[in-house]
Amino acid sequence: MSNTRIERDSMGELHVPEAALYGAQTQRAVDNFPVSHQRMPAQFIRALILAKAAAAKANVALWQISDAQGNAIVEATQILLAGDFMEHFPVDIFQTGSGTSSNMNANEVIATLATRVLGETINPNDHVNCGQSSNDIIPTCIHVSAALGLHERLLPALTHLVETIERKALQVHSHVKTGRTHLMDAMPVRMSQVLNGWAQQLKANIGHLQDLQPALQSLAQGGTAVGTGINAHPQFAALFSQQLSALTHVQFTPGEDLFALIGSQDTAVSVSGQLKATAVSLMKIANDLRWMNSGPLAGLGEIELEALQPGSSIMPGKVNPVIPEATAMVAAQVIGNDSVITVAGQSGNFELNVMLPVIAQNLLSSIELLANVSRLLADKAIATFKVNEAKLKEALSRNPILVTALNPIIGYQQAAEIAKTAYKQGRPVIDVALEFTDLPRSQLEVLLDPEKLTAGGV
Amino acid sequence: MSNTRIERDSMGELHVPEAALYGAQTQRAVDNFPVSHQRMPAQFIRALILAKAAAAKANVALWQISDAQGNAIVEATQILLAGDFMEHFPVDIFQTGSGTSSNMNANEVIATLATRVLGETINPNDHVNCGQSSNDIIPTCIHVSAALGLHERLLPALTHLVETIERKALQVHSHVKTGRTHLMDAMPVRMSQVLNGWAQQLKANIGHLQDLQPALQSLAQGGTAVGTGINAHPQFAALFSQQLSALTHVQFTPGEDLFALIGSQDTAVSVSGQLKATAVSLMKIANDLRWMNSGPLAGLGEIELEALQPGSSIMPGKVNPVIPEATAMVAAQVIGNDSVITVAGQSGNFELNVMLPVIAQNLLSSIELLANVSRLLADKAIATFKVNEAKLKEALSRNPILVTALNPIIGYQQAAEIAKTAYKQGRPVIDVALEFTDLPRSQLEVLLDPEKLTAGGV
Amino acid sequence: MSNTRIERDSMGELHVPEAALYGAQTQRAVDNFPVSHQRMPAQFIRALILAKAAAAKANVALWQISDAQGNAIVEATQILLAGDFMEHFPVDIFQTGSGTSSNMNANEVIATLATRVLGETINPNDHVNCGQSSNDIIPTCIHVSAALGLHERLLPALTHLVETIERKALQVHSHVKTGRTHLMDAMPVRMSQVLNGWAQQLKANIGHLQDLQPALQSLAQGGTAVGTGINAHPQFAALFSQQLSALTHVQFTPGEDLFALIGSQDTAVSVSGQLKATAVSLMKIANDLRWMNSGPLAGLGEIELEALQPGSSIMPGKVNPVIPEATAMVAAQVIGNDSVITVAGQSGNFELNVMLPVIAQNLLSSIELLANVSRLLADKAIATFKVNEAKLKEALSRNPILVTALNPIIGYQQAAEIAKTAYKQGRPVIDVALEFTDLPRSQLEVLLDPEKLTAGGV
Amino acid sequence: MSNTRIERDSMGELHVPEAALYGAQTQRAVDNFPVSHQRMPAQFIRALILAKAAAAKANVALWQISDAQGNAIVEATQILLAGDFMEHFPVDIFQTGSGTSSNMNANEVIATLATRVLGETINPNDHVNCGQSSNDIIPTCIHVSAALGLHERLLPALTHLVETIERKALQVHSHVKTGRTHLMDAMPVRMSQVLNGWAQQLKANIGHLQDLQPALQSLAQGGTAVGTGINAHPQFAALFSQQLSALTHVQFTPGEDLFALIGSQDTAVSVSGQLKATAVSLMKIANDLRWMNSGPLAGLGEIELEALQPGSSIMPGKVNPVIPEATAMVAAQVIGNDSVITVAGQSGNFELNVMLPVIAQNLLSSIELLANVSRLLADKAIATFKVNEAKLKEALSRNPILVTALNPIIGYQQAAEIAKTAYKQGRPVIDVALEFTDLPRSQLEVLLDPEKLTAGGV
Repeated sequence: MSNTRIERDSMGELHVPEAALYGAQTQRAVDNFPVSHQRMPAQFIRALILAKAAAAKANVALWQISDAQGNAIVEATQILLAGDFMEHFPVDIFQTGSGTSSNMNANEVIATLATRVLGETINPNDHVNCGQSSNDIIPTCIHVSAALGLHERLLPALTHLVETIERKALQVHSHVKTGRTHLMDAMPVRMSQVLNGWAQQLKANIGHLQDLQPALQSLAQGGTAVGTGINAHPQFAALFSQQLSALTHVQFTPGEDLFALIGSQDTAVSVSGQLKATAVSLMKIANDLRWMNSGPLAGLGEIELEALQPGSSIMPGKVNPVIPEATAMVAAQVIGNDSVITVAGQSGNFELNVMLPVIAQNLLSSIELLANVSRLLADKAIATFKVNEAKLKEALSRNPILVTALNPIIGYQQAAEIAKTAYKQGRPVIDVALEFTDLPRSQLEVLLDPEKLTAGGV
Repeated sequence: MSNTRIERDSMGELHVPEAALYGAQTQRAVDNFPVSHQRMPAQFIRALILAKAAAAKANVALWQISDAQGNAIVEATQILLAGDFMEHFPVDIFQTGSGTSSNMNANEVIATLATRVLGETINPNDHVNCGQSSNDIIPTCIHVSAALGLHERLLPALTHLVETIERKALQVHSHVKTGRTHLMDAMPVRMSQVLNGWAQQLKANIGHLQDLQPALQSLAQGGTAVGTGINAHPQFAALFSQQLSALTHVQFTPGEDLFALIGSQDTAVSVSGQLKATAVSLMKIANDLRWMNSGPLAGLGEIELEALQPGSSIMPGKVNPVIPEATAMVAAQVIGNDSVITVAGQSGNFELNVMLPVIAQNLLSSIELLANVSRLLADKAIATFKVNEAKLKEALSRNPILVTALNPIIGYQQAAEIAKTAYKQGRPVIDVALEFTDLPRSQLEVLLDPEKLTAGGV
Repeated sequence: MSNTRIERDSMGELHVPEAALYGAQTQRAVDNFPVSHQRMPAQFIRALILAKAAAAKANVALWQISDAQGNAIVEATQILLAGDFMEHFPVDIFQTGSGTSSNMNANEVIATLATRVLGETINPNDHVNCGQSSNDIIPTCIHVSAALGLHERLLPALTHLVETIERKALQVHSHVKTGRTHLMDAMPVRMSQVLNGWAQQLKANIGHLQDLQPALQSLAQGGTAVGTGINAHPQFAALFSQQLSALTHVQFTPGEDLFALIGSQDTAVSVSGQLKATAVSLMKIANDLRWMNSGPLAGLGEIELEALQPGSSIMPGKVNPVIPEATAMVAAQVIGNDSVITVAGQSGNFELNVMLPVIAQNLLSSIELLANVSRLLADKAIATFKVNEAKLKEALSRNPILVTALNPIIGYQQAAEIAKTAYKQGRPVIDVALEFTDLPRSQLEVLLDPEKLTAGGV
Repeated sequence: MSNTRIERDSMGELHVPEAALYGAQTQRAVDNFPVSHQRMPAQFIRALILAKAAAAKANVALWQISDAQGNAIVEATQILLAGDFMEHFPVDIFQTGSGTSSNMNANEVIATLATRVLGETINPNDHVNCGQSSNDIIPTCIHVSAALGLHERLLPALTHLVETIERKALQVHSHVKTGRTHLMDAMPVRMSQVLNGWAQQLKANIGHLQDLQPALQSLAQGGTAVGTGINAHPQFAALFSQQLSALTHVQFTPGEDLFALIGSQDTAVSVSGQLKATAVSLMKIANDLRWMNSGPLAGLGEIELEALQPGSSIMPGKVNPVIPEATAMVAAQVIGNDSVITVAGQSGNFELNVMLPVIAQNLLSSIELLANVSRLLADKAIATFKVNEAKLKEALSRNPILVTALNPIIGYQQAAEIAKTAYKQGRPVIDVALEFTDLPRSQLEVLLDPEKLTAGGV
């Protein structure tokens, strides 16, 4: 198709596209893995390049490579970070389980650029990969890319969603609606109580994710091939983490036990489990919004979501809750991504987990999807919906379950008979209560006032 | 605690409760596995006893054990099938992955009873287990117990549910309701169309389960230790299946490839996947029922489910859709059971899957739960709900989306403007259509008649 | 960025890139859903275009659109099918749950091209979408794209894998190896028995998938907005299926109950469950290959997989089982995709499932991944591995478990003592058997011959 | 079957077994839900009884019930906690989604006993359930039972497992073995490094579970029917938590937002996700043990697990890794339990999650199974296995991958050639290195010493 050049590695020679910055091992991987035609995610490649820069600086400081070599490697990484070089990272997600092909891809691309910068040969293995193994740098980059994703994207997006909900709660505080348990009419609640409940769900998820950040920022780097650190300088792990922290403004630290960090992907499993929990929360919120918006006439009709697009190719004038639906689909996808990571997390035997690329892909997908959809949900659904006060009022006024407020005075049994009579006869509960009890109407009016009932208490 | 006697096996002696029909190996398993304190399911033990009877008859026919030995074993199995002997099958689900402990439990109990019957020693290994290995009889009994569960319980229960729905559909045929897509008001549908759609969902599931019955009725028996059939007579598999078919009135056959049936649990994985699909269908139906029943005043209120129990410990008079809720919880459990079986199905290496007991437990649990809840759903929800025609009518009469019926005449764009105007002004769509089009009221009345619209067509 | 033109739909005007073939509704969706930056899969778009061609032909036959309009639409679809127009289908997977945005995208692109072809206006709704709703055409295209994926790609790939395994089984028939149950040494098996077991696992999966093809080839088309078929000609469904069958050479039929096919995604759930079962089978096979290949010196070392690339960035000369690893990662992904579809399958309420795009994406991803990796596994792992006969022989010769063959003659208890003595003293089992029994060496040599033992029998 | 008495509730009269401590509502639930024939777990019932005692004390302090009533209720709970009364808690897991039936069961049983104690009527609703709703007490008891399960059972069991592993690591420190990545021979590791890696995996899980304890110990109590606290004294939540903390010696606190705690089950979802992560870790450890134990002759044979029972009903002398297998099956079950909770966690609409009983069951099952199997794994597998030093030594001595240690001196390319030559010619790597390099044998002996290589470094 295009012109090629000849490259070689320890297994021999092969053809590589002339313009490719990568070399033989990347090309072997391209040839070996025509599976998904999806590349490793850009955020992962970014983490890999950042890690190679940090490694080069650490290796210079430890006299493992020369200053000139180190500077050339760092300059190469800066070139890559500044532009869009994704076409030079063509390796499929479904490759060797260690991600060695992606590591060698980065080593080769950086070596090519660094050689051009320096004017003398930089070797992918001996210089760019110096003191590293795929077995420590790929787990490291799963942690780094996920940690950056949490720090830079997901946690700010969730915080934005919380703030948007809390702001909206202030705006809708005056609205009182029929509470529903088992989908059945129950005691009244304030719209603000509903929204603050959602905000609290999300704040709890943010807290749980933050609790996992230290584990995610703890790195396998320095363990090299099997965790013992063979061929890495004893100070390499510490210096690497320092350099990476400086580059990213996130605090990374060497892992306490490198065998655990290479042989398992437990942190990814824990983080994914918590991302899934966040997805479950968003599903609940999205469904509540969809149902409150249902109708407009034959549904609950409590709120009206902003109309964003025509809802039907056949039913004119129809408007659908598309943002909550997109949110719910993201939640479903994140739940499935977590299943992948759960299976993959079991696939370590002895000194290495060998489902690293598929873990990277699914973990980063979950972070990205949740971050993007949280902002959408905040800005195009929560911030903009309108409350249908007339509908809320009408429903509240007819709700015999308000009789619950009389329990402490007349007991559950008698209250039950009042409620049943009110339902059966279609009469206001206050009228039936007047008949069945000695309580005066003035007291009943106070006791059964929906707004007062949202403040709880006996 | 109780008196004990001394028993021995190939590893030595140990104490066994005096009244226990089992022997040393069962006792070792009881001691080794205090994990869940849940025993292997009764349906599985029943299958194991039936299989031992079939094996004895086959072994007699093939001259592997004597007539007297065979008769004694068969008589022992009949005693066990006639009574409740579950206390003699105390082995935990979380035991050896092959289920050897449960196989030996059955061998020991049957040997004890057969020895009593015959008056001379029947050996658990050499006579009861003759021509068998745990490695073929446990996979066989997973298939047998699940096949009997489908045949005797689940398929009849689902069929009962389908028939109940179809009978109800006839009863509610006259009711027309607002269709809902994206939870938003859409074109009208007949209540009978909704119910027949549910029935069709279930009939499709029944069909898919029936497609899997031949695989489930194909048995590993005859493969013995690793699939080669070592120590089993070449005719054993065929005779065993014949005898078991005669005993159970279900047609069992020897598997085509015994290595696949011992080394994997693929059929269980496929069947469980289809049970999960059935659960998903039931979840949809249960949710539709719950939402149609929601209210009674602040919800959709389209139907009223039979009141089965007080719905709230605090809100008097509240009635909840408890049967659809129980159904939905069963669906959730079956989905989780399928996850267990998916993980367990991957846990075969080489010649044996070693998560057999947990597969048996979860597969039989799914069958049992789906069977029981399908009958409940049929009898205590579908058969007994009432339709709230007034509510349906009111919603239909106000639905501007009926304008869809005018698309073929006036085009989508103009129809959209009519619908929007009707929503905005709260006016009947027919009045707005009169204004916006040249169509006479009489024609519009026909075109926009909800009942006619449920018959489709242009 | 680029020049734009003004487009309008029923909600008003907006800017669209000048070169875009799509119109206002597609642009709204692009603006509304910046979630995954992943488009709907190409196979789904292809199905949508095929369906639009079939619909146009059916509409012409039924006098719903003119011959000229129909021809122009068909010609437009042919242009799209012949080239790569994916940039004109930019809608995100995470969009409206009905996939209306993707349907309108196709309607708009085809209308643009058809208008150019015809020289007069073809309307996206009234002509291209004539007799259709997103609510029937999107479910239809999930079925069509998955059915074509099974027919054209997955079933042939699995069949190729089966044939490759069976061919290899013939080649390795002479090799006998130690069977393993619980990973522990067990009775011997032929290498061909192992491989034929794998082939049988896959053949069973193929059979189960074929059983689901009729359901998948049964279409929602004709149900339009809610299943009643409003605005579609009564003959439309039948003619559409005929035309689509002619176009694709796969037999499609109108669904028996269109409410079930629009309100649920049960067939997708069933098919995905069976794809997951296939993934579980591939995981087993991949793991067996990985373990047989383990070593070369400190592992089982029974086979040697073809070396495809250097295995380590740090350990020179290392070669890893990369194709089985990629296969296992695919299996993990398919299991997760099935979780997504399971959750999504529950997300239908009333007349429409609203997770259609995410179902399409995950179902087609599973089909594609399984198809591609099955061919890789066949060609780059199964076809090319070598057997290490020396290692197999050595292990067999030392295996005391062969004593099992003596059970029918000397009983389980005595056989157990021979085996234990042989292990403990590190002596050949035949020597110990000579001591413990009266059997002559010549008979023992026949009884304990590993090759004979693979033929089973007493 | 047995004699009955007549009981009544707000829906009318029905027959209850004469000896039953429960009343009408429990009996209705027994009649309504013949689904699984499995009761709510004992740990959940215990939490419910503890909560009723705490509530009674709080209600006395707040003048909601009399001292005499409160004392009678507390005494009733003490009777229940001291004995085995599970037969009086017969309600099925698959019941009303709020768990109201179980709450009323506890209210009725306690009221019966308290009435006997006091000699005057204690009402289940008005006294025992005073200030409570099923909607707050059931979520409360999910948290309480899980928190007690973590505190009393799981965390101590995991800690015991960690300590057992660390103790074993000290004992096996001198053993060096071949590391394995991708299952292929890699650089050597110490047995103690392997074990300490496992210990670290578990310590990380313990830490993550501890991070979730505050959320789990934060209670919905006080929210009553919908979160507003209707009918509960404003001080009730605080006093209830104080009393419960005193009773259980675990620090419980009122939740910050009761709407979130009643409308969602997010904390259960998060905790279950982390239990699943723990299961994944145990699966990895169990598999490593199984493979290290594989053989004894045709496997890796690195260790010998304690023989606990005969391993085969057909292969005499076989011993299987039954405890790691039981552990792996527990892991599979916990992964499935998490799927149930993930689906159930999505099943809250508006003010109440309605899959509470199935969440309770699966969450407590996971805690119990993990706790019990962790102790088994510690005591019957880790503590007792023996190392096969001869086998380890033999494998190490033949491993050409040790050449990795020469990379920093001779470069990756030359090292690769040495390794390949050593494999191909079956020669010790040191001999080939002597030939290919200028390094003296004495230096090579130091560089290639497996024990030194486990200390890492360049």
